[in-house]
Amino acid sequence: IEQNAYNDKEHSSSSRAAGMNGNGPSKFVDPLEDPLPGVGTYEDFNTIDWVREKTKDRDRHREITNKSKLSTVALLHSISDAFSGWLLMLLVGLMSGALAGGIDIAAHWLTDMKEGVCLIGFWFNHEHCCWTSNETTFKERDQCPQWQSWAELITGTSEGPFAYIMNYLMYIFWALLFAFLAVTLVRAFAPYACGSGIPEIKTILSGFIIRGYLGKWTLIIKTITLVLAVSSGLSLGKEGPLVHVACCCANILCHLFTKYRKNEAKRREVLSAAAAVGVSVAFGAPIGGVLFSLEEVSYYFPLKTLWRSFFAALVAAFTLRSINPFGNSRLVLFYVEFHAPWHMLELAPFILLGIFGGLWGALFIRANIAWCRRRKTTRLGHYPVMEVLVVTALTAVVAYPNSYTRMSGAELISELFNDCSLLDSSQLCGYKPVSPANTSETGVGNSLADRPAGEGLYTALWQLALALVFKIMVTVITFGMKVPSGLFIPSMAVGAIAGRLLGVGMEQLAYYHHDWFLFKGWCSPGADCITPGLYAMVGAAACLGGVTRMTVSLVVIMFELTGGLEYIVPLMAATMTSKWVADAFGREGIYEAHIRLNGYPFLEPKEEFEHSSLTVDVMRPRRSDPALAVLTQEGMTVEEVEALVESTRYSGFPVVVSQESQRLVGFVFRRDLLISIDNARKRQEGVVGASQVVFTEHAPAHAADAPPPLRLRGILDLSPFTVTDHTPMDITVDIFRKLGLRQCLVTHNGRLLGIITKKDILKHMAQIANRDPDSILFN
Amino acid sequence: IEQNAYNDKEHSSSSRAAGMNGNGPSKFVDPLEDPLPGVGTYEDFNTIDWVREKTKDRDRHREITNKSKLSTVALLHSISDAFSGWLLMLLVGLMSGALAGGIDIAAHWLTDMKEGVCLIGFWFNHEHCCWTSNETTFKERDQCPQWQSWAELITGTSEGPFAYIMNYLMYIFWALLFAFLAVTLVRAFAPYACGSGIPEIKTILSGFIIRGYLGKWTLIIKTITLVLAVSSGLSLGKEGPLVHVACCCANILCHLFTKYRKNEAKRREVLSAAAAVGVSVAFGAPIGGVLFSLEEVSYYFPLKTLWRSFFAALVAAFTLRSINPFGNSRLVLFYVEFHAPWHMLELAPFILLGIFGGLWGALFIRANIAWCRRRKTTRLGHYPVMEVLVVTALTAVVAYPNSYTRMSGAELISELFNDCSLLDSSQLCGYKPVSPANTSETGVGNSLADRPAGEGLYTALWQLALALVFKIMVTVITFGMKVPSGLFIPSMAVGAIAGRLLGVGMEQLAYYHHDWFLFKGWCSPGADCITPGLYAMVGAAACLGGVTRMTVSLVVIMFELTGGLEYIVPLMAATMTSKWVADAFGREGIYEAHIRLNGYPFLEPKEEFEHSSLTVDVMRPRRSDPALAVLTQEGMTVEEVEALVESTRYSGFPVVVSQESQRLVGFVFRRDLLISIDNARKRQEGVVGASQVVFTEHAPAHAADAPPPLRLRGILDLSPFTVTDHTPMDITVDIFRKLGLRQCLVTHNGRLLGIITKKDILKHMAQIANRDPDSILFN
Repeated sequence: IEQNAYNDKEHSSSSRAAGMNGNGPSKFVDPLEDPLPGVGTYEDFNTIDWVREKTKDRDRHREITNKSKLSTVALLHSISDAFSGWLLMLLVGLMSGALAGGIDIAAHWLTDMKEGVCLIGFWFNHEHCCWTSNETTFKERDQCPQWQSWAELITGTSEGPFAYIMNYLMYIFWALLFAFLAVTLVRAFAPYACGSGIPEIKTILSGFIIRGYLGKWTLIIKTITLVLAVSSGLSLGKEGPLVHVACCCANILCHLFTKYRKNEAKRREVLSAAAAVGVSVAFGAPIGGVLFSLEEVSYYFPLKTLWRSFFAALVAAFTLRSINPFGNSRLVLFYVEFHAPWHMLELAPFILLGIFGGLWGALFIRANIAWCRRRKTTRLGHYPVMEVLVVTALTAVVAYPNSYTRMSGAELISELFNDCSLLDSSQLCGYKPVSPANTSETGVGNSLADRPAGEGLYTALWQLALALVFKIMVTVITFGMKVPSGLFIPSMAVGAIAGRLLGVGMEQLAYYHHDWFLFKGWCSPGADCITPGLYAMVGAAACLGGVTRMTVSLVVIMFELTGGLEYIVPLMAATMTSKWVADAFGREGIYEAHIRLNGYPFLEPKEEFEHSSLTVDVMRPRRSDPALAVLTQEGMTVEEVEALVESTRYSGFPVVVSQESQRLVGFVFRRDLLISIDNARKRQEGVVGASQVVFTEHAPAHAADAPPPLRLRGILDLSPFTVTDHTPMDITVDIFRKLGLRQCLVTHNGRLLGIITKKDILKHMAQIANRDPDSILFN
Repeated sequence: IEQNAYNDKEHSSSSRAAGMNGNGPSKFVDPLEDPLPGVGTYEDFNTIDWVREKTKDRDRHREITNKSKLSTVALLHSISDAFSGWLLMLLVGLMSGALAGGIDIAAHWLTDMKEGVCLIGFWFNHEHCCWTSNETTFKERDQCPQWQSWAELITGTSEGPFAYIMNYLMYIFWALLFAFLAVTLVRAFAPYACGSGIPEIKTILSGFIIRGYLGKWTLIIKTITLVLAVSSGLSLGKEGPLVHVACCCANILCHLFTKYRKNEAKRREVLSAAAAVGVSVAFGAPIGGVLFSLEEVSYYFPLKTLWRSFFAALVAAFTLRSINPFGNSRLVLFYVEFHAPWHMLELAPFILLGIFGGLWGALFIRANIAWCRRRKTTRLGHYPVMEVLVVTALTAVVAYPNSYTRMSGAELISELFNDCSLLDSSQLCGYKPVSPANTSETGVGNSLADRPAGEGLYTALWQLALALVFKIMVTVITFGMKVPSGLFIPSMAVGAIAGRLLGVGMEQLAYYHHDWFLFKGWCSPGADCITPGLYAMVGAAACLGGVTRMTVSLVVIMFELTGGLEYIVPLMAATMTSKWVADAFGREGIYEAHIRLNGYPFLEPKEEFEHSSLTVDVMRPRRSDPALAVLTQEGMTVEEVEALVESTRYSGFPVVVSQESQRLVGFVFRRDLLISIDNARKRQEGVVGASQVVFTEHAPAHAADAPPPLRLRGILDLSPFTVTDHTPMDITVDIFRKLGLRQCLVTHNGRLLGIITKKDILKHMAQIANRDPDSILFN
């Protein structure tokens, strides 16, 4: 018999058509014809129901596939629909790559503008200006007569204290101007354009709705103000905001395709890919970008998205390369090439850097969150423009005299990562020339051998130490101001400085004590045994890891910078240590901390729910509360339903067979219910307040004089999720996370008992962690 | 009131202790004390319940955390427990790396043994033998007097047809010997050691139990026979089996830690990481390995596993490198360095290679599955030893005369990937010397410039073409024999040959027609515009992609081989095309096809469920079937329960309030029920056949003369998953996949209606795809 049932191919459809126990066609009958506009959509600052969205998409897809068998046009439609995802990815990659290139070029130009101007055309930056000049040699490629500092231009001389002060003042003036423009543009046109955007994007990707956050105004203003903010010399980077920019591009381009415009879940797949694109263009690391999206920002990341993200990240990286904003045909932001392998003993200083990174991360998060909370709660928050101007002025005044703080963060990191060759003229490579005696000892003159530090290097070390203290302090108050501000570059800069200092220290130690038992055997004179640049890189990774708690993606990004598997082990040792140390002080990364500060409903997918509560402890209503507000499938009038909806603020209502049995039939959303009733009252003949609301398939017989019933089975979700009251909360949390639920009904022995929402879970978690449960603001 | 409930921190625990509606402490009260041995475990060839396993682990963790506050010993235990995962990963990495190194060395030695022997010690392979000799120059490093071919050793001369035949026969002899040893060892000691193992590992990772598949015997025998099979010259690779070997290591090492030994879900996390380790040591590509595990084999891959896999993959790669089996300090199997960039127009041949790869993939899967099905159903399957010997003899006889089939697959690929420099003496680089006129035309003599093909190259091309045809045919019958056999290397070899042929063709076309409008501008004489090695690589990726349908991980593995982001675009274009073309012929990769052939219960996580059925169409019982077998929470006697269990073959039974109401209370597993009843009858006083079985918390009053009731609430799962009958199947399938369910109960308006299991879903899917639903063999 069973076999027959299977072989009967019509069985499944017939049983559905015939219905079960009198219940007929479900809500999924004709998905493409939305009966009423607005039904099935969400309000601003609300959480989406992933299951509903995915079902909608599958129904849509099924519809198109079925139609495609009927006509050629429909077939073409079906094919174009299948490839629209790839096309969208291509467009996102191209647009983001182009924007990132533009931002790079503009920021470079404006940054140079603070120091001087090009006489042959003000639109040339310093480097381009001197390219056109034939008089420059390779070594002095940044010194040419066409480029004049402001003092030179105004007073005619670039020497002397007066010219220095002149340049100093012009530097501060431009910095203030850029910062003022940035903050006023943000305030006037797109308040969402401030900050790094990653906390909000994480929240949006987890299924929250913030209208306008990824809109065109945000895109335009963020792009412009990002350039201004970076150029103003503030301690911030463009990497985080580039993720936001890429997500804005993706969101806007989604409007070109119905499939993505109308479906919140599908759109989030595209946004996940866009996050990968953002990191890809920020660092020139497509694989790292994809892993960043997977590890750090995404919530729902099916394999299809993995593949598409990778495609988009590559397109973006190659678009950026063909724009060639750095003028060196390199894909990556910091191209590093190390020549010496590292020794096992060096793991000790690397782990030390990891500990430093972890401590810095924990400290930074605490200090920054405390400062941001103060900004939110005190009068400080009322003067954002003034705050930005004061911080900019402070930064400019302190930064100018020190060449390591005056240069942009990316330049600083690039210089710190660099391995000194003999030709290098940088101050950091100010080693004493090697005495011939030492060289002859090993027979081979190694041009990269460790050398004793000279005066130039000692000066550089002092400047770096001061720069470290300054960067640490100013970054805390900068991140979170009302300008676009990324955190990657400042964090990396702090780590790179610390790493370089330690690296040079190790190098000198090894040089002067090369016969210590520790250094014996691998640090003979004339050998290149310590690479300070590698220490800088490890330090940068450790500090970034401490702040963001990224692990794999961070190591892969760094791997893509160097291109050598050799250096993965130091990077990994440092990031692992950094994460563990930072986790000991608090398990949240900076983005999660900001999400919590803003009260967004974000259910962290990484952390396990450890407490042993049961669902019955978390669900509503509590035992002392009034009973759950439910609708019955028949017997309630429109007026009664409206009264019930009015008297509560719930987003949805369970529908039961009867108040006595409390057996669950389905779930109906408040928004859908209100829209439907409203529409029926306006359009449907005879629907008045006394009309019965009917959720059953067949309307019950009604008296001839009674008004016709309002049938609402169409908006009833016949497959609500349920758990039993005895389900441990860890399982319930898992279900919420993995399926992306907004709410779930709780039953006991088959009877409806209560409801549990994402907000309830978050409040419960906050309570367990001894935090204020009311800090969760949204549904 | 609500606020009070939150602030009352005791609220949640008190409400649990007091119980709800008379139900008290749940099954999660004391998880560490397993009341009965066997309860909560699984039978062989059954599917695990992920949720149950994960809950068990969380309870265990909670217990340890709570105890850690009490004493220092417990605190240390808690810390060691937290770090045991990392320690285990370290051990897995070390052991797998060491084993892979041993396999490499042994296979190299045995492969050379087929050709000759080293006089200064038979344990040296050809290369090592000649290293010790001082007489060899760099160019002839593989020719030295210490190494003698068999003919030389026996007859004293290596010249002439007689010596050739002698060597030929010895080659066949050794090949047959190795193959015979391999197949008999597999048959005698570990039948699970055959094949690549990846289909089974995929199934195991998805939550299936195959006892002994990852045991110590499988490990030992697979390691030995893998060496023998590879050395026998059969068209197979060691990459797939290395994944199996790594998983065996992980499974065995899991026994050292209670946390992993006792928990099927936790163990699968380790196995996922081990799969990454396997690929990492196979190709020297740790990042690619992690992505392979994520994309291709894993089912449940939380972020914690991502990070740990990466760690283990790195440890393994570095262990392998320190063993240095290839003697070149390289991590990667095929180290490639290309010098010339590719041109946009070359995308056309790359896409052509993608189409070839896709066609090959589709063809190979069809042919191989047809052959394997024939093996299963006809008498062929009764003579596995004979089959292996015949195929080996065939391979050896045909392969020997052609140098490209005689060499091992890895060597072949390595040679095909290689970019010809002027110094290369390989036949593939048999170009004519460039005429000085051409060189002077460009001014600079490019040592890698395209040159006209010489006689050597033409011979090589013919041999390659023959090798291609041979490889295509022999691989189809080789994969699936009763020896360990991987598919990566043969597939890549096929693609590499095709790619190299096309590449050389393109090169010659460009050389002779450099003034065609297509080549104009980028292919001037004396320029190195076409790199045949790159074509070989792209072809290899395309063919491997066609067979396995890997995408991102494949591109990343290839990226790690070359180390240059430059070549990602060609690789990606080819793998994408290959996947699309192959998917057009059938959406299954070779591993999924083998899983289906074997009837394993594997729910593909990648594919969407497209059909529009409802859960009610798939659940049991069907409408014409007898009602669902349920237990009532009280009122049934032990005899009745036993009779019900005996009369059915179900793995579990729902427990309802009463037969009339059909309101669901919980779910009890058959195995747990039988063990508990059995145990009670043996040990518990007074439990006889007439005793009542009680699932409620409080036993009902019973007459003084009646036997005492058997209380079984302890084994009752009070939180079974339920869906409504109207739930669309795509949602139900999603729930099964994401939560890793084994079964789910189906309700209608709060009443229990049926049950749906993973097997039911798979049968339904088979039926939709017009396959035999009875091909799903296991639960």
